Amino acid sequence: MNSPTTHAFPTDAKTAPYRRAAVIGGGVIGISWTGLFLAHGLDVVVSDPRPDAREKVLAGLDEIAPALAALGLPTENLTARLRFEADLATAVADADVVQENGPERLPVKQEIWQTVEQAAPAHALLATSTSGIPATAIAEAMRQPERLVVGHPFNPPHLVPLVEIVPGERTSAHTLRQAHDFYTALGKKPQILRKEIPGFVANRLQSALFRECVHLVAEGVVTEAELDEIVTDSIGLRWAVAGPFRTFHLGGGPGGLPHFLRHLGHAMEAAWPGLGTPVFDEPTVARLTEQAEHAFGDTPVGELAIRRDRAQIALMRALATTPDTHAHV
Amino acid sequence: MNSPTTHAFPTDAKTAPYRRAAVIGGGVIGISWTGLFLAHGLDVVVSDPRPDAREKVLAGLDEIAPALAALGLPTENLTARLRFEADLATAVADADVVQENGPERLPVKQEIWQTVEQAAPAHALLATSTSGIPATAIAEAMRQPERLVVGHPFNPPHLVPLVEIVPGERTSAHTLRQAHDFYTALGKKPQILRKEIPGFVANRLQSALFRECVHLVAEGVVTEAELDEIVTDSIGLRWAVAGPFRTFHLGGGPGGLPHFLRHLGHAMEAAWPGLGTPVFDEPTVARLTEQAEHAFGDTPVGELAIRRDRAQIALMRALATTPDTHAHV
Repeated sequence: MNSPTTHAFPTDAKTAPYRRAAVIGGGVIGISWTGLFLAHGLDVVVSDPRPDAREKVLAGLDEIAPALAALGLPTENLTARLRFEADLATAVADADVVQENGPERLPVKQEIWQTVEQAAPAHALLATSTSGIPATAIAEAMRQPERLVVGHPFNPPHLVPLVEIVPGERTSAHTLRQAHDFYTALGKKPQILRKEIPGFVANRLQSALFRECVHLVAEGVVTEAELDEIVTDSIGLRWAVAGPFRTFHLGGGPGGLPHFLRHLGHAMEAAWPGLGTPVFDEPTVARLTEQAEHAFGDTPVGELAIRRDRAQIALMRALATTPDTHAHV
Repeated sequence: MNSPTTHAFPTDAKTAPYRRAAVIGGGVIGISWTGLFLAHGLDVVVSDPRPDAREKVLAGLDEIAPALAALGLPTENLTARLRFEADLATAVADADVVQENGPERLPVKQEIWQTVEQAAPAHALLATSTSGIPATAIAEAMRQPERLVVGHPFNPPHLVPLVEIVPGERTSAHTLRQAHDFYTALGKKPQILRKEIPGFVANRLQSALFRECVHLVAEGVVTEAELDEIVTDSIGLRWAVAGPFRTFHLGGGPGGLPHFLRHLGHAMEAAWPGLGTPVFDEPTVARLTEQAEHAFGDTPVGELAIRRDRAQIALMRALATTPDTHAHV
């Protein structure tokens, strides 16, 4: 058993309402949320209709337990508060929070949420992990669309701090506050977006950068492995401690970003049309595939992921114990 | 005096040729290179025609000395091997390496390099820090264009590992090897680009991402401060340990990047035209300026930069002492 006073939600805090979580969908994202919830002392019900759901989730929890422990969370008897319930309505019947990680298809999500809103307690926080479907569209079939919000994690949720909280057109301010409190209590760094937009923020930024990555490799300027090293040795390092605006603010000298924009903004704007607009045609996909096999093919993906997560945790620890990191400057 | 055996270039290694550096231009980049060269035991001549060059460079070295020390480099009597020589030909006369950081104007750089190639020893490595002018164009006025190469640092050079080595059309393989050896001996992580391209690689990637940042703030989806936190809490952290291709390779499950491209490539490509194409018109610049003042205006830029560099160094130390970071996976 976990110590009831360590890492569990304190019963007198605003997070006290969230004691019982229902996780819908036992795939990679669902497993990661489940592990995080359990390590924070919540009771968790996983609902997934697949017959091998229990087996997959337990195997997945075994895989991520070392990362949870490395984050300083308790992982002994992690599954003591875990149960499985294939029937969706039964699974959410006593939930304080429902985190849905179903297939990324609108009709499926609409059907799930129609069932959930009728079966879950009135106080429950209702969040979908969708990376692309707007809450507005999912909630069209709901009687209380104000209760649904996107809580989109950056993969994997148990490790990367960001959770994008994206309101639908009818999501209530109360629901946004609930979501913000809940994810904060889990140690995450939630950000409430001010507007619904396809792809949300982090994935749009990632996609914008990746587009140029594909262009540079397709054009033969660098290989994938070379480009990856360029990023980890410059902008990656930089953006781990200071975001793009702060970076250009500090690049503007004493006048900061306003000076930068006045003196270099137009040169930057003039260069934007020269950025690449690649397509994933056959030669490009073949080149990218071949280089990926050359760069990464010697080691199974799972092993590479374990190494990456280990480095990620070391970096997060360093930032957490350093005064004046991005969270504080 | 620095210990002659610590951090100085070992006299029996291939780096031994580089004992005397000429740094052309005593601005921010020139000062940073100067500090790094001195801390690695080189003799340095700074050549800058401005009457206050000595004063500015010495003040700048005082500012960066703590960061050099935090990187583990010796900084006692840092300026013992430093001298100033306004006359360019005299300054480079006995240089083993010339690092030029002059104004970013082609005619100025062409004139500098015509002088330097005639005055510098035949064995000297000739590198320009230019962030945007191709070596091919600068070398047009040179008799030995094969000797010139771009050695473009990511600011600040004494701190961020990347140096982009960019050949001009006529740069020789020998010059590329010289540059790679030299920057490696300084503890940098040089990358030789395979082709000249405007903006090189790191700044093109930075610009592609920043374009979308400007769009999202101009559209009111997030503020600058919110966007910066989203980046530092997700893709920044990630790209500090795994570049974009490795990240998507690990996001592709056991099938890696090839699987990712086959199954998600077309959806990503379909979303690219939906990325923003902002312009720095008056309302956008006004919004960006106002938000920058709100987000960063309370603290002088110099102080913010010191804090960022401190966090940057903590992160680099953590990565350096962690097995399986990007350099090793």
